[in-house]
Amino acid sequence: MATQEFTIVGTSAERVDGVDKVTGRAKFTGDLAVPGMLNGKFLRSPYAHARILSIDTSEAEKIPGVVTVLTSADLTGLNPYLKGKDHPILAIDRALYAGQPVAAVAAMDEMTAQEALGKIKVEYEELPAVITCQDALADGAPEVHPFAPKNICFKDHLEKGDVEKGFAEADEIVEDTFEFPMIYHYSMEPHTAIASVDENGVTVWTSTAHPFGVRQDVAEVFNCPLSQVRIILSFVGGAYGSKSGGKIEPLVAALARKSGKPVRVTQDVSEAMMTVRRHSVTCKVKLGAKRDGTLVAREASIYLNTGAFAENGPSVTTRTLIRILGPYRVPNLRIDSYCVYTNTVSGASFRSIGGPQTAWANESQLDMLAQKLRMDPVELRRKNLLNRGEELRPKGKPLDANLFEGFDKVLKKIGWTGPVTEKGGGRGIAFGVTDPGAPLASTATVHLLSDGSVVLLFGTAEIGQGSRTIMSQIVAEVLSVPLDRITVRPPDTAFTPFDRSTGSSRSTTVMGKALQLAAEDARRQILDLAAGHFEAPLEAITLKDGIAEAGGKKVSYGDLIRRHFAMQGGEIIGLGYAHSGMATKPSNPLFWEVGIGAVELEVDRETGEIKLGKYIMAADVGKALHPLNCEGQDEGAAMMGIGHSLYESIIYENGQIVNPNLVDYRVPRFNDLPAEYDSILVENADGPGPFGAKGMGEGGIIPVAPAIGNALAWSTGVRVKELPLTPERVWQALKAKMDPNR
Amino acid sequence: MATQEFTIVGTSAERVDGVDKVTGRAKFTGDLAVPGMLNGKFLRSPYAHARILSIDTSEAEKIPGVVTVLTSADLTGLNPYLKGKDHPILAIDRALYAGQPVAAVAAMDEMTAQEALGKIKVEYEELPAVITCQDALADGAPEVHPFAPKNICFKDHLEKGDVEKGFAEADEIVEDTFEFPMIYHYSMEPHTAIASVDENGVTVWTSTAHPFGVRQDVAEVFNCPLSQVRIILSFVGGAYGSKSGGKIEPLVAALARKSGKPVRVTQDVSEAMMTVRRHSVTCKVKLGAKRDGTLVAREASIYLNTGAFAENGPSVTTRTLIRILGPYRVPNLRIDSYCVYTNTVSGASFRSIGGPQTAWANESQLDMLAQKLRMDPVELRRKNLLNRGEELRPKGKPLDANLFEGFDKVLKKIGWTGPVTEKGGGRGIAFGVTDPGAPLASTATVHLLSDGSVVLLFGTAEIGQGSRTIMSQIVAEVLSVPLDRITVRPPDTAFTPFDRSTGSSRSTTVMGKALQLAAEDARRQILDLAAGHFEAPLEAITLKDGIAEAGGKKVSYGDLIRRHFAMQGGEIIGLGYAHSGMATKPSNPLFWEVGIGAVELEVDRETGEIKLGKYIMAADVGKALHPLNCEGQDEGAAMMGIGHSLYESIIYENGQIVNPNLVDYRVPRFNDLPAEYDSILVENADGPGPFGAKGMGEGGIIPVAPAIGNALAWSTGVRVKELPLTPERVWQALKAKMDPNR
Repeated sequence: MATQEFTIVGTSAERVDGVDKVTGRAKFTGDLAVPGMLNGKFLRSPYAHARILSIDTSEAEKIPGVVTVLTSADLTGLNPYLKGKDHPILAIDRALYAGQPVAAVAAMDEMTAQEALGKIKVEYEELPAVITCQDALADGAPEVHPFAPKNICFKDHLEKGDVEKGFAEADEIVEDTFEFPMIYHYSMEPHTAIASVDENGVTVWTSTAHPFGVRQDVAEVFNCPLSQVRIILSFVGGAYGSKSGGKIEPLVAALARKSGKPVRVTQDVSEAMMTVRRHSVTCKVKLGAKRDGTLVAREASIYLNTGAFAENGPSVTTRTLIRILGPYRVPNLRIDSYCVYTNTVSGASFRSIGGPQTAWANESQLDMLAQKLRMDPVELRRKNLLNRGEELRPKGKPLDANLFEGFDKVLKKIGWTGPVTEKGGGRGIAFGVTDPGAPLASTATVHLLSDGSVVLLFGTAEIGQGSRTIMSQIVAEVLSVPLDRITVRPPDTAFTPFDRSTGSSRSTTVMGKALQLAAEDARRQILDLAAGHFEAPLEAITLKDGIAEAGGKKVSYGDLIRRHFAMQGGEIIGLGYAHSGMATKPSNPLFWEVGIGAVELEVDRETGEIKLGKYIMAADVGKALHPLNCEGQDEGAAMMGIGHSLYESIIYENGQIVNPNLVDYRVPRFNDLPAEYDSILVENADGPGPFGAKGMGEGGIIPVAPAIGNALAWSTGVRVKELPLTPERVWQALKAKMDPNR
Repeated sequence: MATQEFTIVGTSAERVDGVDKVTGRAKFTGDLAVPGMLNGKFLRSPYAHARILSIDTSEAEKIPGVVTVLTSADLTGLNPYLKGKDHPILAIDRALYAGQPVAAVAAMDEMTAQEALGKIKVEYEELPAVITCQDALADGAPEVHPFAPKNICFKDHLEKGDVEKGFAEADEIVEDTFEFPMIYHYSMEPHTAIASVDENGVTVWTSTAHPFGVRQDVAEVFNCPLSQVRIILSFVGGAYGSKSGGKIEPLVAALARKSGKPVRVTQDVSEAMMTVRRHSVTCKVKLGAKRDGTLVAREASIYLNTGAFAENGPSVTTRTLIRILGPYRVPNLRIDSYCVYTNTVSGASFRSIGGPQTAWANESQLDMLAQKLRMDPVELRRKNLLNRGEELRPKGKPLDANLFEGFDKVLKKIGWTGPVTEKGGGRGIAFGVTDPGAPLASTATVHLLSDGSVVLLFGTAEIGQGSRTIMSQIVAEVLSVPLDRITVRPPDTAFTPFDRSTGSSRSTTVMGKALQLAAEDARRQILDLAAGHFEAPLEAITLKDGIAEAGGKKVSYGDLIRRHFAMQGGEIIGLGYAHSGMATKPSNPLFWEVGIGAVELEVDRETGEIKLGKYIMAADVGKALHPLNCEGQDEGAAMMGIGHSLYESIIYENGQIVNPNLVDYRVPRFNDLPAEYDSILVENADGPGPFGAKGMGEGGIIPVAPAIGNALAWSTGVRVKELPLTPERVWQALKAKMDPNR
């Protein structure tokens, strides 16, 4: 790659939304008020599965200040199902999980709405429920949906080579079952939406990562053209997949429709937990190797608990087929993955869908194999790790990264001498290499105004990831304008060009590309104006800091625009479709996302507590457009990984979530971080994004759990196959090892 | 011209905003509420000219509910002058006209704000004032501004040929002075604005015809980039020039800045009258002709009373140089025009700036010449009327219309047999041919969404003229989509591409062109997708009703977009700059706007009342994109002309407007309309706009007054040279004629 000189890209510029956020003046959806707005609340099913025999709203409606009580009887004229047939916006006839909205109230204030919920009389007939995949797949289990026999929502399959033959040739075979729990995203901001419906359409102010996905969902529910649905975003206080596509918005809009007034619904954490979560997964994995460590066959059966509704469970299911593979050369494969309905809240998108769950199985199992082979786990990985250009996914895009580079850097940084430290602690390492999806449909416009200020319109939600800063950097670099001259407009689907979504590590790569193309389009137009102004050839013109120069003469972009438009103001618009610049075959994945993690830990044998000493991670980012932001993404992702590795799990008892709050659902705190917590960026400018960038931010979460589980196993000899590795669970395992008869 | 087949353009489609307006659900700025909004009021100078010695706000500030009292002392950090040096947003040191804002209050409600105005103690030293041009130009007159000696704000001059020689060759010379009064626009909606100011910029919701002009003005006052000022429009209840550029918005924004909260100011009619008005004009005109009626020389001195501030007075002044000419061949010309400061509310834009005032002089004088020459006024006009291609303005664009066609049609329709009817009534005819300006800077985007719905972003304000419908028709025609699939977004400068302004007959021609180009750009992209889809050459593809077809196979635009973007949604954006498609040399005017009016009337000799029997008008529209709308524009313009011809005048007494309300300021009512009131559209598809359209809507106001004045003169023998032709004024003239010694 030719070396390119940058002035703005590659620097850790001050965040363009930084001052607004640290001063608290940044507006989130919950900070908004819409004139005449009511406050809404949802009544939720207390049963995991129940027939709704009747709903009597009359007492609730009598309460002064109550404007609307909405039940499924009020959905006339709407299509009440989200994305397909299984997910009504409000329970119809049956409630399918504890927490499903059954009715909704809009009132003058939240207290009154809350009071009204208590006055709605719902007569239920409780039905038998299935909570786990095991429950759901058992013979004779009750069926969640009549159209899904045996509760199979979806299944998918991947095969390569001849697995039987592969295992027959293996010298060692390991076979195990790993459990990954349900996890809640725990965004700082739970789901919040304000909706307003009138004759001209639906407007929703919402905290979402997918403004255009919400538009699509609301348009489908309301049977109206996309142009009549307007989704307006403020800042979003975290998403991590919990805000991918329509969540509470269609129901809030239905409530607003009946109310004839705007309605706001602000969920608390327990309600957000009853909205979406990560898929819990059971992985049955089998791996065969030659004595020298060469992998020869892998078989896996993966069961995803997708909850009551499909959401994107089928996509997650398909994704696990690849994600269980890891970046290793295995000639014979057979993977089956099952998406299973249960009477629980729906599984949905979550940072690296299906990634941590499957890596927990395959990267743990790799170390179990190493133990059997008496090999260093680093050696085993090195032996099987794919080289750049090798096939990872059958018939898919070849690996587009040098995995050894990051691997070596991580090992060096953590001081790898083997899986056991001098003090008897453990070391673990794992990979997270995935196909991030990164769908291509992004569109953006760059507007150069007549005073030289620049406005960017693009649909990426600023969910905390710093996209406003990075996109501004890309445009500032291409257009040669100072960064502070750029203003980013938050997405408003009435005006903002289409973007597929914010997530799946796509924004910098795909939307960034759209913005790069849009800025190049605007740059070409400015160059044309400058050429005309100076009566000089294009090659004679240089652009710098918002000034065009030729032959020692200078003119500002603003002056060029004003002159072009006869001093009447004016504006240059650059347009970019990511799609046009990036179409590749095979297009999936656009790039391979690479995360690597290594841990050093000690285990308190008295309490079972795992104490992390070092955690070193690496991400292959192609080109770090904003290095500090990249590090923040990677360290944040690993922090989330530490959460599900050591602390987090949504616990169901008798069909109910029993820990829906910060006290009972433990997330990592800053003092849970290892003393040494470092991230390494691998940069070879080999990504398809702007300036060689590739997506990141998901890779970092994947290797954490197996790295920790492996270090635990190497240092203590106990292999725990179920997350999280709580002190109690570890202590039990240690105890069981000491007293195997217990 | 080749005949073009249209399916949507040229039909009088239902107005896209029609149902919203007739049901009353259309939102105007006054219907909006912004959360936390205060209500503001302006304290106005009671003196036409006074020094402000002190302002004591302490009592006003003590009133409970008063949040802010703003005086010029609070403008620190702002640039308090609008567009140049003469117009502060709030009086500084001196008040220059009665009604000028001197202080402003923001309070919890309007009543409290009103109460607070009464508690602000302003100590004034009254100064001598000048109200008329005559006052202002008198020797030793007080000067309104220290920088404008003799109160001359601006002057301009036009010369051609040799006027002295021309008059020397003339057989007849007429020389007269005509007076045109101050007129108020009387939009149904007075000026209303809501402003909000925070660290990230200024947002203003306002009733304006120039969203981008207001943006410019606010950015200048606030010393900030254009990108930090956001102007949001709803429907606008009429403008007619009264809402061209920043009016109350900068002051409301300054009030919001000090308040730290949004502030709304809703003016009543008397306040709107103290904001802007049409220039009153004195025209001294001299015209020479040969005995056969051939015009040989014209001289004119034009004095425009521009009030206390320049506003666009200089532009109006320059425009009168051309507008005094009329569409007649006069080889020798000398025109001087003076823009004069006085201590009155500022003159500003008003439907056909400088047009009715100058036509009142030149078209009246033409009939006076005809009377002297004993010629039929139609004959005199026909003799001197320019042919297509002849020069109208020296060195300007040649006449691009056939004036005889409309002239003949009007004469035929009114049944012209001469200027006196069989019953002794009068007939009058006049032309209004002007250079409408129509500046070229318009930009638009057309967004084709993945369900085939279409969104238009353009900056034209819907001020009642029907622009949303016409622009939708243009795009529907070009893109071949049904009209009801199109949604127009109201202008919001945060997102909407730049547009110079709504006015000067430019929107259909210039913005329409931008939209036509944008739609063509989108159409090309759809054709490309269709060619790829069908694997067919572009020529094989036809587009109709949102469907692409080739070889008998069909696909919807939405499906094409979804497939192109890999079924992930998507959007096609078409971009149009009017400028690129239309640049002409000489570029001013882009086209000549043609209006023709003829009247038949009777005069009640007892009361002096003029009773209009017929009014026939013609407009050369090039191509009527929406015929009913064109007729509505022309008839509305003529109705306004009837207003200033017979009823309207802002009356100043002792420096004060004494008739600032609908009772004392008489506007025409429906039963003031002539029994026969017809408009004729001349269509030769010879305009520079879409499909050959050219601007209209201003031409119709120009000929009304001279046509009526001429008919009055022919039927009664009295020539009244001052408008309006009220019964009292006519009666006095009739009386004076009968008793010349009176």
